[in-house]
Amino acid sequence: MILTKIGSIIKQNDNFAIISHFSPDGDAIGSSLALYNMLIENGKSVDIYNQDEVPKRLKFLPYSNYIKNQLLDKKYECVFVLDCGDKDRIGNLVDIFNKTNLIVNIDHHISNTLFADINYVDSNASSVGEIIYNLLKINGFEISKNTAMCLYTSIVSDTGGLKYSNTTSMTLNIAGDLINTGINFTEINRILFNTMTKSQLKLLSKVISTLELYKNDSIAIMHVNKQMLEECGANEDDASDMVNYARDIDTVELGIFIKEVDTNKFKVSLRSKNKVDVRLIAEKFNGGGHVRAAGFTIEGDFETVKKNILEVVSKYWK
Amino acid sequence: MILTKIGSIIKQNDNFAIISHFSPDGDAIGSSLALYNMLIENGKSVDIYNQDEVPKRLKFLPYSNYIKNQLLDKKYECVFVLDCGDKDRIGNLVDIFNKTNLIVNIDHHISNTLFADINYVDSNASSVGEIIYNLLKINGFEISKNTAMCLYTSIVSDTGGLKYSNTTSMTLNIAGDLINTGINFTEINRILFNTMTKSQLKLLSKVISTLELYKNDSIAIMHVNKQMLEECGANEDDASDMVNYARDIDTVELGIFIKEVDTNKFKVSLRSKNKVDVRLIAEKFNGGGHVRAAGFTIEGDFETVKKNILEVVSKYWK
Repeated sequence: MILTKIGSIIKQNDNFAIISHFSPDGDAIGSSLALYNMLIENGKSVDIYNQDEVPKRLKFLPYSNYIKNQLLDKKYECVFVLDCGDKDRIGNLVDIFNKTNLIVNIDHHISNTLFADINYVDSNASSVGEIIYNLLKINGFEISKNTAMCLYTSIVSDTGGLKYSNTTSMTLNIAGDLINTGINFTEINRILFNTMTKSQLKLLSKVISTLELYKNDSIAIMHVNKQMLEECGANEDDASDMVNYARDIDTVELGIFIKEVDTNKFKVSLRSKNKVDVRLIAEKFNGGGHVRAAGFTIEGDFETVKKNILEVVSKYWK
Repeated sequence: MILTKIGSIIKQNDNFAIISHFSPDGDAIGSSLALYNMLIENGKSVDIYNQDEVPKRLKFLPYSNYIKNQLLDKKYECVFVLDCGDKDRIGNLVDIFNKTNLIVNIDHHISNTLFADINYVDSNASSVGEIIYNLLKINGFEISKNTAMCLYTSIVSDTGGLKYSNTTSMTLNIAGDLINTGINFTEINRILFNTMTKSQLKLLSKVISTLELYKNDSIAIMHVNKQMLEECGANEDDASDMVNYARDIDTVELGIFIKEVDTNKFKVSLRSKNKVDVRLIAEKFNGGGHVRAAGFTIEGDFETVKKNILEVVSKYWK
């Protein structure tokens, strides 16, 4: 069994590196730091890497400040690559492949290209955090409070707080075992899911004030432009999830969010609840996505663009 | 064991009523309907009651439209009272006590007054839903998909989506068992936690636009008045959770929300993150509450009231 083999590698070696994908999320950072904490608690020498900065909301995790953005001039007995579907996801630190003779790839993306010497891919796992938990349990490594914080963060990050459909009874059982270590999971959830900057909050207010409803309040449109961002001291990323506020209105089936990215150029996000296949709509505008979440880019002046979108959407309305 | 005794009562009788507390929440309605669904699936005759209307967001639960607000002229072999710390919580349907010789009280409030013939109070349970789950399991009653929907709703409602500190590993294991029945838990969570009316959303925008920050952005004040409610077609309840948006700003320790309830009369909510004991502040204004959530009522014109509050708060600032 591959996880016991990986356990033996950990027990038989002393000198490790850990790396995860660029633009790291809660699972990339959480699973990397979980493995890091466990390894140093077992007396190993470990370097932990990521191309990019740790997102601010994840800096509460133990040893997050140890994550390096530049490779050290060192060799490793083993390098762990976590949450990367392929080699390119490592970004500009891909040279780490030349710093070891043993790469271990641990992932949960079904599309994983099995690029390493040892590959463990479990696409039924909600998160790499869930896999690292199993790795530790199967091999008898203790899960400390620090490690549990990181694993819990991984799992709730990738499952939207144990709510997305990738959550299984196994996921919930593992979360239960982790909270038994005494971690402050209420605080972790607050940090991850209920924190905004004042700029984001002000922007949210402005964005909601643009709300327009159509077709008996079943279509909601909101938008953001450069001027609004500027007035709030916000950036484009700050608006990224606001389309959900449009979709989440009780009467709404389709939420549309129009973001100005340049003069007369817009990114449009579509979210539907139960019925409309928004990918079909996005494809009409040469965009793409999934059944419930899709998007496209469109040029023109704002009012024309909005009219244009509403016209196409109307064709999908019964 | 009391739960097996209650199981025997269910098996030996045919004619039941179920009632829960007035102003019902997700646990009151969810646990009542879980028991209702299980009983009718087992061929029992059951009436289900509540003094008040089922909240709109809970109407998706199976048989929620069967909940009656008026007592029928009937006798029952057994009446279940759920999620009520005392008899008064039943409200104006308390006459149900005269319609049976056997009252079974199932609750999780430590303060429960044990008012019934049979009392089962488990204050370690996150919710009455968790207790009903155990009742069904221990007595070998099958948990159908309908029953599971109701139990899951109970549990996530009372734990804020498996996030509050009353969540235990037992709670998470039960949630895992419930999702294995195939319920659409993603949709349930969306309905419970991510749904707003357009009035609420518009009000949120207006409320956020009142944001003021003090003491290096560590104190956030927002307010709502009658005019804002009117402009949005909203009512006072629609503003009830908005204090959290103030507290949830990354730099904020104390969130203050001032709600106009009458001319020159205000209800003030206080929420803190980690440090400030807001009960102490509320007590200075003859209010009360808990360490992290408290409130009080205050009279005066808005600007004077705000100044007054900030002055008192400042004394607790290091």
